[in-house]
Amino acid sequence: MEWSQIMERLHKLLDSGRHGELRGALMMLSPVDIAQFLETLDPEKMLLLFRVLPKDMSADVFSYMTSESKQSLIESIGDNEIRSLINEMFLDDTVDFLEELPAGVVKRVLQNTDAQTRDLINQFLQYPENSAGSIMTIEYMEARAGMTAGQVMADIRRVGFDKETIYTIYVIDEGRHLKGSVALRKLILYNESVVIDSVMETNVASVTTTDDQEKVAGVVRRYDLMAIPVVDKENRLVGIITADDIMDVIQEENTEDFEKMAALTPSEDSYLHTSPWKLAINRIPWLILLSIVAIFTGMIITSYEDLLKNVDIVLTACIPMLMDTGGNCGAQVSTLIIRGLALNELQPKDIFRILWKEFRVALLVGAVLSVFTLLRVRFINGADWPVSLVVALSLYLTVIIAKAIGCCLPLLAKRVRLDPALMASPLITTIVDAASLTLYFSIATSMLKLG
Amino acid sequence: MEWSQIMERLHKLLDSGRHGELRGALMMLSPVDIAQFLETLDPEKMLLLFRVLPKDMSADVFSYMTSESKQSLIESIGDNEIRSLINEMFLDDTVDFLEELPAGVVKRVLQNTDAQTRDLINQFLQYPENSAGSIMTIEYMEARAGMTAGQVMADIRRVGFDKETIYTIYVIDEGRHLKGSVALRKLILYNESVVIDSVMETNVASVTTTDDQEKVAGVVRRYDLMAIPVVDKENRLVGIITADDIMDVIQEENTEDFEKMAALTPSEDSYLHTSPWKLAINRIPWLILLSIVAIFTGMIITSYEDLLKNVDIVLTACIPMLMDTGGNCGAQVSTLIIRGLALNELQPKDIFRILWKEFRVALLVGAVLSVFTLLRVRFINGADWPVSLVVALSLYLTVIIAKAIGCCLPLLAKRVRLDPALMASPLITTIVDAASLTLYFSIATSMLKLG
Repeated sequence: MEWSQIMERLHKLLDSGRHGELRGALMMLSPVDIAQFLETLDPEKMLLLFRVLPKDMSADVFSYMTSESKQSLIESIGDNEIRSLINEMFLDDTVDFLEELPAGVVKRVLQNTDAQTRDLINQFLQYPENSAGSIMTIEYMEARAGMTAGQVMADIRRVGFDKETIYTIYVIDEGRHLKGSVALRKLILYNESVVIDSVMETNVASVTTTDDQEKVAGVVRRYDLMAIPVVDKENRLVGIITADDIMDVIQEENTEDFEKMAALTPSEDSYLHTSPWKLAINRIPWLILLSIVAIFTGMIITSYEDLLKNVDIVLTACIPMLMDTGGNCGAQVSTLIIRGLALNELQPKDIFRILWKEFRVALLVGAVLSVFTLLRVRFINGADWPVSLVVALSLYLTVIIAKAIGCCLPLLAKRVRLDPALMASPLITTIVDAASLTLYFSIATSMLKLG
Repeated sequence: MEWSQIMERLHKLLDSGRHGELRGALMMLSPVDIAQFLETLDPEKMLLLFRVLPKDMSADVFSYMTSESKQSLIESIGDNEIRSLINEMFLDDTVDFLEELPAGVVKRVLQNTDAQTRDLINQFLQYPENSAGSIMTIEYMEARAGMTAGQVMADIRRVGFDKETIYTIYVIDEGRHLKGSVALRKLILYNESVVIDSVMETNVASVTTTDDQEKVAGVVRRYDLMAIPVVDKENRLVGIITADDIMDVIQEENTEDFEKMAALTPSEDSYLHTSPWKLAINRIPWLILLSIVAIFTGMIITSYEDLLKNVDIVLTACIPMLMDTGGNCGAQVSTLIIRGLALNELQPKDIFRILWKEFRVALLVGAVLSVFTLLRVRFINGADWPVSLVVALSLYLTVIIAKAIGCCLPLLAKRVRLDPALMASPLITTIVDAASLTLYFSIATSMLKLG
């Protein structure tokens, strides 16, 4: 059945007030889909449908809703409902959701959780944003060193249902220090009396609570893990992060890079739910900064007033082509470098290898483009040979300079611990503009015997 | 111990020929790290170390090596070694690796596999590139409808070790049609005599062999899955794709988008291993295309020769600022839209909502930028009020037009089934240039009473 048909039928059941049937229909759907359906409803109907949901599904559905809907729902349900919702949710989902709420609403939610959960939540809320601690879950399966395989299996059967994953069991000592891990797939093969210490993997990759989520994603991807344990500074196990959360981290980090590379202030809000004011504020700072840099480009042109007013207009007409090509060449190489650095495929120490490679690429690309441009300016625009040569030569040098700038700036940024993504096309374009115009006019002045 | 220290000790053991100790040391490391160490060796030592590896680790290490090293290794080992390597490897890793080899080497590898594996490999090699079929694994755990929980558990204990994941068991009927799935975490809780049909999840998200990997990643991420089953056109189960492979797909697709958005022809080769020739070829087509588009911008300037030669040079000096700002504004919005489309957060049908929102953003951003520019041109560059007004007004309109173009082009591309990422800053910049210069000169001509 098509999704649009499903939506239609749900709407019909909702409007006709047949709540039993509606509940039955909802039980056939995944929490993700129900959450998506909820987003299409007005607050009143959303509340109604949420209350019709089977109790064991509501926490799951809730965790997939947008933060706006979560807030509107929390503001309209009673204290008892809040309490049972928080009890059912995984702690990491609760923390994610609280981080997005205004302080007053957070207070009301916290008042409705038991003391122990409240302490845990408060602890979580103190981890730095985007750190391993802030995205981990505490619902993992642990075993004490010295337990037998049979004891661990019995434990899993008893409490495993409330854990986010039971497929890796983490082994700790009396001081809660992480000692090793056992995969469930191996555990089920062992004799019940085997002591887990003797079969556990002791070489376990882990991260600490303060590690950045980007680093965590890198480790998980490198070792193809399904989950990674999180330890505190004393190597005590405090949580795990599962692969599904890592996928979201990867997409989030990529989106951030895309935004920075387009001169946007990264924002975690969804586009359609952000006000024009806020969008404008995210865009203005970089635009102002870049237009200040462009003042220099303007000053370069002003200082060559005589040249531009007395020579073939083709010289002026080629400014946009020169600027655009320089910007594009710079953007091509800076994008490759930024991406290589983000994926750990390139290191700042590779700078000379990269520069040498880019220099050869620039010679080739520049040759093709400048021959093309020489013929174009001479025969299509009808300029004379000297002017055509000035344009072609400037273009060749622009390509080389653009590649060098596009290559060095991201690597330099990485060296001084700035995000290389900031050194993307907008900034590079502006810098290359200034460099290429200076070159262009100097070449024109000396070759055309002016000035 | 630091990674550099580990490398140093391994080098020492390798040089001194103490193979027993070397093997012991390697057994302490993960296959990923060993593969990374191998990459630093010359072919002869690489082969030596590979032969020292414990047999059960070599296939794993091999699958993490770069394709260049895989090829050099395959070319230097004997037929027997090839045979045991292929037997130990997961089929999807074998296929990935064969796809990167020259035909002659592929033939030699295929000659050394048994008939059944060869057929399977050939079938895999026929799936379109980047399709679900080409990245799936056939080492999954299946159960026939009608089996009991006890029978399934016995099966897992017997053959589970060779499967890529056993945490979800897929239930099929006699015709191999996918009927449902059971999570191992639930299976271990059931009484041995329970028939799995009665407890399986019947609402299983699946993909077909020809689905694009980007779509697969979208489904897995949407439903937070650890693995997704792959079926053929008749809904027969043929394989699964696990979360660790999906993470690589996500990064690959993001890299492709970054490259397209920077006017690069996407390439799956690593930067440092690609020759300057190949890099140049990946970059020239777009640069030529864009410089052809820039010819029009040049023609616009040429046709306003009188204006530019007779009025304040500031008019010319502001061309770069106007072009850069237009390009940046267009890039900002097109990036947001391209990203929103890629993550399925925006749909082409949202076009009017987006346009209306961007129009309001443009009014705000344009107001701030043009007031800033008006004052700057008047008081810093010392132009008179009419010229300053021409620049400021053109800038305002440029911002609005740039936002509109940056908004419409990616959505249009999506409509006509082109990749929206192609409509990124380089193309948008060039188009916005032409539009903004036309505006600029028209406004100048009419306001300054010239022409």
